[in-house]
Amino acid sequence: MQRTVMAHLECVVITPVDIVLSVAVAGGPDIASESLTVTVGDRPVEMAEIADDHGTRLHVADGLAVGRLVVDYTAQVSSLGPPSVSRPVDLVRYLRPSRYCESDRLAPVARSEFAGLTGAPLLAAVSSWVGTRLGYVPGSSRPIDGAAATLLARQGVCRDFAHLVIAFLRACDVPARLASVYAPGLSPMDFHAVAEAYVDGNWHAIDATRLAPRSTMLRIATGRDAADAAFLTNNCGIITLTGMEVVAYTDELLPFDDANSLVPLR
Amino acid sequence: MQRTVMAHLECVVITPVDIVLSVAVAGGPDIASESLTVTVGDRPVEMAEIADDHGTRLHVADGLAVGRLVVDYTAQVSSLGPPSVSRPVDLVRYLRPSRYCESDRLAPVARSEFAGLTGAPLLAAVSSWVGTRLGYVPGSSRPIDGAAATLLARQGVCRDFAHLVIAFLRACDVPARLASVYAPGLSPMDFHAVAEAYVDGNWHAIDATRLAPRSTMLRIATGRDAADAAFLTNNCGIITLTGMEVVAYTDELLPFDDANSLVPLR
Amino acid sequence: MQRTVMAHLECVVITPVDIVLSVAVAGGPDIASESLTVTVGDRPVEMAEIADDHGTRLHVADGLAVGRLVVDYTAQVSSLGPPSVSRPVDLVRYLRPSRYCESDRLAPVARSEFAGLTGAPLLAAVSSWVGTRLGYVPGSSRPIDGAAATLLARQGVCRDFAHLVIAFLRACDVPARLASVYAPGLSPMDFHAVAEAYVDGNWHAIDATRLAPRSTMLRIATGRDAADAAFLTNNCGIITLTGMEVVAYTDELLPFDDANSLVPLR
Amino acid sequence: MQRTVMAHLECVVITPVDIVLSVAVAGGPDIASESLTVTVGDRPVEMAEIADDHGTRLHVADGLAVGRLVVDYTAQVSSLGPPSVSRPVDLVRYLRPSRYCESDRLAPVARSEFAGLTGAPLLAAVSSWVGTRLGYVPGSSRPIDGAAATLLARQGVCRDFAHLVIAFLRACDVPARLASVYAPGLSPMDFHAVAEAYVDGNWHAIDATRLAPRSTMLRIATGRDAADAAFLTNNCGIITLTGMEVVAYTDELLPFDDANSLVPLR
Repeated sequence: MQRTVMAHLECVVITPVDIVLSVAVAGGPDIASESLTVTVGDRPVEMAEIADDHGTRLHVADGLAVGRLVVDYTAQVSSLGPPSVSRPVDLVRYLRPSRYCESDRLAPVARSEFAGLTGAPLLAAVSSWVGTRLGYVPGSSRPIDGAAATLLARQGVCRDFAHLVIAFLRACDVPARLASVYAPGLSPMDFHAVAEAYVDGNWHAIDATRLAPRSTMLRIATGRDAADAAFLTNNCGIITLTGMEVVAYTDELLPFDDANSLVPLR
Repeated sequence: MQRTVMAHLECVVITPVDIVLSVAVAGGPDIASESLTVTVGDRPVEMAEIADDHGTRLHVADGLAVGRLVVDYTAQVSSLGPPSVSRPVDLVRYLRPSRYCESDRLAPVARSEFAGLTGAPLLAAVSSWVGTRLGYVPGSSRPIDGAAATLLARQGVCRDFAHLVIAFLRACDVPARLASVYAPGLSPMDFHAVAEAYVDGNWHAIDATRLAPRSTMLRIATGRDAADAAFLTNNCGIITLTGMEVVAYTDELLPFDDANSLVPLR
Repeated sequence: MQRTVMAHLECVVITPVDIVLSVAVAGGPDIASESLTVTVGDRPVEMAEIADDHGTRLHVADGLAVGRLVVDYTAQVSSLGPPSVSRPVDLVRYLRPSRYCESDRLAPVARSEFAGLTGAPLLAAVSSWVGTRLGYVPGSSRPIDGAAATLLARQGVCRDFAHLVIAFLRACDVPARLASVYAPGLSPMDFHAVAEAYVDGNWHAIDATRLAPRSTMLRIATGRDAADAAFLTNNCGIITLTGMEVVAYTDELLPFDDANSLVPLR
Repeated sequence: MQRTVMAHLECVVITPVDIVLSVAVAGGPDIASESLTVTVGDRPVEMAEIADDHGTRLHVADGLAVGRLVVDYTAQVSSLGPPSVSRPVDLVRYLRPSRYCESDRLAPVARSEFAGLTGAPLLAAVSSWVGTRLGYVPGSSRPIDGAAATLLARQGVCRDFAHLVIAFLRACDVPARLASVYAPGLSPMDFHAVAEAYVDGNWHAIDATRLAPRSTMLRIATGRDAADAAFLTNNCGIITLTGMEVVAYTDELLPFDDANSLVPLR
């Protein structure tokens, strides 16, 4: 199977700015070809690559000038990657509460709703709880909203679904983290986010939105929550996103995903 | 200068439990001698050491039996450590909002209160703002409270002071993180927490509580906030802390700390 | 049936203070005898009575001197009162969100959990939901916590149970309010708080704690939430409550309360 | 001076709905002429008038049919009204925290920022603090946001400015409430909201937005906060506001308002 992905961002830099891009596919699978070009006012911008955990590849540039910023990324990936390797510290770290996955604050709800469940049945129960109780409503949440806000609002987008799944799982003592992905089959196409949970010695993807099959998703960034996986971050200056297009497809028919089986991101 | 530290914890394990201890001094300075013993019901518990970032050394054990848990740690440190080394990803990561340092949510306040300031003057201004507006009131905050709650409550303990400093600095585009430390001179003696900020190519300690000199503090854990630095974490079971004693002293007179100079943790 | 109630409060006035007491039984039933005495440093304090809505009787005094404040209230009530009369504005007002009953914020949860229910079955469902999902844990909540905090914490005391019931009902378009009461049979004895909901032309008491029979409760204050019913409020000064005793009993056997029948406060 | 006001609302009733309108000028000044017409699908709707506190006049109708709802209100007011009369209970009630004015939660900030101030200087200081620290940004706040959210966001619209003023004043022991008003001179014209504070025996208007002169404002509703003063509330059904126009003018030149003088709503 070959997976092809593209991302096109258009922004206006209002004041000189440092940017961090998280659009490149993570290290792991074989990348047959790849290209990242960034321009400001039609002049190319040199991006430095920084390695974050789990193969995450960030691209950064400081002091971008005021003007029109255009990002074009494309990659062709010709294999599945190996299963995600877990260091001992990961199993400690991904039990900790994080900015948008306040598992400490949500522990009373999680422990009450999912009492007695562990392992794969717990994952299925949490995914079903979140998927059936939340409405998928584009624009309904704010960037500063975390899982506690989502629990009350009963609606959100993919990152909110993932945050609530992660918070519930951590509160039930299951290491859980967020992965941003390219998701063939997603409609409307966009960057996507899913939860990953560590059960029986492996990390498994959980997508409570059920909007795309998990086995063909292609990992971008991996971390505690959306704070570790924003596709574009601006520091020291102001930027406005004016347009965005994401493409992701495979050269094979998309598989059926029954949602409750254990599926790794590859 | 030689620094001697000790920590003694007494707990009751209510149901079988996994624990993560973060009491050992971080790698870096020369450790002349060190001992960690953990017992449950007078039987010794084998602890595994896990490396977290920045030299942090966690000690973990799973499935501790019900009973009385006692932790004894002591170390003698005979040198200052080297300055903290910063990887490129650290300067990106420690600008991100975190569980207890919601720099995204606090950005409007931070940018208004500290407009126009950068570098060392910004650090001094933030430290002074937090130190003069917050009251140090033991027991006034909850473990789930972050910097936004502290900003409204205008009181807290060392971790709350550190969280608010960190959140403000990140919102002002300064990488900032939390370090748990042994702090000779602290009174009453306890585990302590300070902020660290990256300015002019180095990490500098900020202690808005001004309760102990920074140059003799001894680093334990380093991370995004208290979620990465709790001295005792329990997973999969219930534990009650029933007693605690911390000791930290040096073989020299404690230095005067003028609070606004740039001082690294060594 | 005759109901006898007593309240004894001991406080220390730290700085000169204005106080509002809400300990007197509300107008309505026949009050056979009643006495309120307030002293500061053994000198009697003249209290002025102020009428709040629904027969609520507040007692206020301004500029109390520093010293030991003692409040003694007792009343014997010899009849049931008439049913609570509802003005048209009450049915509008008690649908509005209030400080501790954030029905606007809790509407997504309420409308999802109680979809399709109205009238008495809705009251029973809300009472049961709150009563079975919350733990009654003295000291677990803070005075500034409202229903949203209670929903996440899954525990609280009588006022928290009442606040969550009220918030859910308002979100489901049922006028609901809080009543502070003397509650014969409550153990341990204390001031108590219940919700009241307007269904089928009358106000009915809902006590999700099920700690005392509703039909023998004696109304003190009635309002939007605990902000309208605190037994002691201090303004312009500082006060510390150092002791409290509440007594409430009837001259008949306490009735059995099946919790789901419609019972008015009389 | 004669004041002329008009309000025109267009809505779509999605499901049968009960509505509460708060658009009529409050009782007090001489109303020379007045008209309220409400239609659904071009059929007139009979509105019942309900008296709320302080002369507030609500207009309600239940069971409105699905269709296009149009509200037209106009009034000509030919005199200033008498000063607002205060009952004893008002001075107690308007010290209480309310849904959007969480004076209990904001007390630490208020008491720190305004320590030592009372009376008119306190009112001026609070008005100035709020007016200079908040940005007036239409669309920046949500209906469920209260003063604590506004304090962190540092921006809002007129109701947010008023809520923060009210919360601060109550925390400083000054009775404070919200009034919705028609505000000649406001640009762009809209419904407006201001705080009222009780000082020296009278209620004074505080408009931290400084967007219109206070002495020509015309009171609509008066209450604890926006929960008591929404111009349109829907219960038991769904409604969408599709258009709105507000007009307010006087037959004289608008006065200059120096913002810090004590000005009542008349």
